[in-house]
Amino acid sequence: MSEPVYDLVAIGNAMVDVLAHTTEEFIAEQDEKCGMKKGSMNLIDERRAVELYGEMDAGIEVSGGSAGNTMAGFASFGGKGAYIGKTANDQLGDVYRHDMKAMGVTMNTVPLALGAPTGRCLVLVTPDGQRTMNTFLGAGVELSEADIDENLIASAKVTYLEGYLFDPEQAKAAFKKAAQIAHDAGHRVSLSLSDSFCVDRHREDFLNLVENHVDILFANEDEIKSLYQVETFEEALEIVKGKCEIAALTRSEKGSVIVRGDEVVEVAGVKADVVDTTGAGDQYAAGFLYGFTQGMDMATCGRLGTLAATEVISHMGPRPEVSYADFIEQAKAAA
Amino acid sequence: MSEPVYDLVAIGNAMVDVLAHTTEEFIAEQDEKCGMKKGSMNLIDERRAVELYGEMDAGIEVSGGSAGNTMAGFASFGGKGAYIGKTANDQLGDVYRHDMKAMGVTMNTVPLALGAPTGRCLVLVTPDGQRTMNTFLGAGVELSEADIDENLIASAKVTYLEGYLFDPEQAKAAFKKAAQIAHDAGHRVSLSLSDSFCVDRHREDFLNLVENHVDILFANEDEIKSLYQVETFEEALEIVKGKCEIAALTRSEKGSVIVRGDEVVEVAGVKADVVDTTGAGDQYAAGFLYGFTQGMDMATCGRLGTLAATEVISHMGPRPEVSYADFIEQAKAAA
Repeated sequence: MSEPVYDLVAIGNAMVDVLAHTTEEFIAEQDEKCGMKKGSMNLIDERRAVELYGEMDAGIEVSGGSAGNTMAGFASFGGKGAYIGKTANDQLGDVYRHDMKAMGVTMNTVPLALGAPTGRCLVLVTPDGQRTMNTFLGAGVELSEADIDENLIASAKVTYLEGYLFDPEQAKAAFKKAAQIAHDAGHRVSLSLSDSFCVDRHREDFLNLVENHVDILFANEDEIKSLYQVETFEEALEIVKGKCEIAALTRSEKGSVIVRGDEVVEVAGVKADVVDTTGAGDQYAAGFLYGFTQGMDMATCGRLGTLAATEVISHMGPRPEVSYADFIEQAKAAA
Repeated sequence: MSEPVYDLVAIGNAMVDVLAHTTEEFIAEQDEKCGMKKGSMNLIDERRAVELYGEMDAGIEVSGGSAGNTMAGFASFGGKGAYIGKTANDQLGDVYRHDMKAMGVTMNTVPLALGAPTGRCLVLVTPDGQRTMNTFLGAGVELSEADIDENLIASAKVTYLEGYLFDPEQAKAAFKKAAQIAHDAGHRVSLSLSDSFCVDRHREDFLNLVENHVDILFANEDEIKSLYQVETFEEALEIVKGKCEIAALTRSEKGSVIVRGDEVVEVAGVKADVVDTTGAGDQYAAGFLYGFTQGMDMATCGRLGTLAATEVISHMGPRPEVSYADFIEQAKAAA
């Protein structure tokens, strides 16, 4: 087992979010027209991305991507991290790479020189604060095994993978390669299930991964129920026990439940004014993994996750607007 | 005099803002190094833009440009408007044109096909909420007389021009052509002085314009003092009287003073939690001009301006995050 250089390395679909307010009616119309599911991540092609953008309100652009958001939060806590994700050599790619570097996150993935533009996610935020995502992967589909830097993965305490990587075919292979390298180096592999529809699309793969390759699992209530195709959270909780070292299951305002062997820790939610839920799960993972890589107990890890998630839903956009390092004492003090 | 089709048409330097938090120390260092003036607009070239961006924190991208922001606010009030500004055929240009269209603002300026990219403004926001702008004009320098659509200008009740247009040489000519067309059509010309350093750079031009060509002038305290090179606001106020039909002078939290002939109207400020002052003056002009084009009295126009400016400084970014139409009843009721 080599000495870790990084606390966390994450691999994900790199993309810039375009966030705009919308109405319930607009989502309902789009669902009718092309099956846009409120609250979830809908994959779209470039033609559809142009069409939908044309119908959206004026927006803000901010770097996103699930695992990328987690790395931004992780760095805000003070963790040492790296990110692997495919951008293009274009203006949005420049923004993406700049933002990672500016957060102190190492990102050396070679941008795509020719072909698709940097991916983008058209995020529609309804008055209830719920976000509905429409993702054009763009250059992200070109992320492949060749982008997996063995030395980097082997040098990290934890390798974090977003479930969304199972959508583009080549990324799946990259994902599996990275998990193998991490384990061979004696380090841990963490997975976020990302989205219940994503779980639906790749259930067999995810069941196999969780049982055989994942040490730290993140899932929300819908995702874990979808994975095990059960009706209640309690049933899912019973099934996941023992499947991996740690499962951190989030339940929105109800807080989270962390399972580690026979130990079950419940972490209370925090009352929040919800402006935009984009990035909530990503920042929970950021807080939890920061605590974990610093050797904190499960309850403190969970509280760090909750504090970060609560901050990110209080404003538009999926990344920190304040320094998460300020949450560390608060999470420890609550013990 | 032709029948107006648009309430307002604005001409400005089109650009995308990149906003990030910074420290007082960073601004002081940059001032030492290259004369970056806190609170003002600093013109930079592409090389410097790349260098400064490399030193900035992770940011958000949002359409900006002074007159463009005013049009976004004007449309949010429900006004019918158009915008003339030069973008490039690139991703940031697509964002800019999309956002205008999405706000309901007509924008038909042909994007630059080859050459400079869409302009951007690197906005550094200090903990006091003050913004320091660093503008790379990019494609904006190519705005010229050829971009001035005569029919469009002639069809608007008011043509609004940002003082920043005097920085790029060709835009100055475009500005003068537009003012001539507006007056020939029997409509009004409005000017924002934009920035006290900008006034410094073009004082003679501005003095001539205000005296001979401007009907509605917007300036903040620093700008009007700079224009007339006087020490106090009261001196400037006396000098500006009678120079143009209306002068609306803003004084941050002290509110604004509107001069129309011998009439002087004071409008109270509104106490606000300042997050980011970017766009404050632009949105004051939006509210004022909305009221003016709807035939409201000076005090109501001023209150509309204040309400819009107060909203925009409560969040990051220079454009509305709520519908300004909701302010109309409030401004009328305060009479």
